[in-house]
Amino acid sequence: MRILGIDPGSVVCGYGVIDVNGGKLTLVEYGVVAVKRRTTSFPQRLAEIHQRLQAVIARTSPDECALERVFHAKNVVSIVQLAHARGVSMLACAQAGIDPVEYTPMQVKRSVTGRGNSSKEQVQFMVRSILEISETPDFFDATDALAVAICHAVNGGPPPPVNAHRKSGGSRSAWKDFVDKNAHRVK
Amino acid sequence: MRILGIDPGSVVCGYGVIDVNGGKLTLVEYGVVAVKRRTTSFPQRLAEIHQRLQAVIARTSPDECALERVFHAKNVVSIVQLAHARGVSMLACAQAGIDPVEYTPMQVKRSVTGRGNSSKEQVQFMVRSILEISETPDFFDATDALAVAICHAVNGGPPPPVNAHRKSGGSRSAWKDFVDKNAHRVK
Repeated sequence: MRILGIDPGSVVCGYGVIDVNGGKLTLVEYGVVAVKRRTTSFPQRLAEIHQRLQAVIARTSPDECALERVFHAKNVVSIVQLAHARGVSMLACAQAGIDPVEYTPMQVKRSVTGRGNSSKEQVQFMVRSILEISETPDFFDATDALAVAICHAVNGGPPPPVNAHRKSGGSRSAWKDFVDKNAHRVK
Repeated sequence: MRILGIDPGSVVCGYGVIDVNGGKLTLVEYGVVAVKRRTTSFPQRLAEIHQRLQAVIARTSPDECALERVFHAKNVVSIVQLAHARGVSMLACAQAGIDPVEYTPMQVKRSVTGRGNSSKEQVQFMVRSILEISETPDFFDATDALAVAICHAVNGGPPPPVNAHRKSGGSRSAWKDFVDKNAHRVK
């Protein structure tokens, strides 16, 4: 199964594609759509994000898509701008016949590092370990998008409520054990 | 000049197209994109809104587009959902090479009825009078969209700050006089 993860943003929008074969996760590609805020109007920025995501979807043919849910931002204007970018990201997925699954930032972090309040650096460290990425990406948005894809690989759909997850324990895959084993290495 | 006005919404999205020739405004077409909330997923609703607006733009070839700015909603979830729908509406305009101009609900109401705190019924009454629409539209969203287009016709671009407008007085067109003359008829 191939998963596209998206970390939507109206200035920098991260994307990451992974393959899932049993308990093994492998990187397909990742990157960011970084649009020029000063020289490009907001509607044109949305068009660029949409176009680039469409190209990623056409190139990689993902089976499923996942993106981070919006809950908070600096202020209402930021939330509204971010939601515009999420709208066109969702649209790109829907136009490819895929309804993206949404995850909260806490669910994404917990799936990757084992803790819901990890820093961006910790998430990046674990994503690089899991997917064996040797380089340090320029933007956290790219590794955040890969983290969303990994989160979807773990949960395989909309995740259960936090309490239910804790009570049941959930099923554990080989790579999830890898995450736990390496959690102490996260600085 | 032909103007497309959009009143974006994630369930009902209104649109209205008018022609402006001197001080005369004439209706081209108006309607709503009403998507089924219960049977259609949110991403698919966005796709339907985008597709229908693209069809309207292709059919009517507007020179300019205008839409209402988001400022408030029932709660954050509503703002976020609305902003998603605005995102795909903006995208449809941007893909046609038109950067939509935004107006606050107060600016729209003031342009149409002369008052910034008019009710939806009052806006609809004036829109129907100005554009000589005999029927009563099923949705306020359609007349709201026409009101946005009329607002753009009055202002002809991003409007000046309220104080500057009040100080300068602004230029007045024949149809604006019509609005003032009929303002007392608004119930």
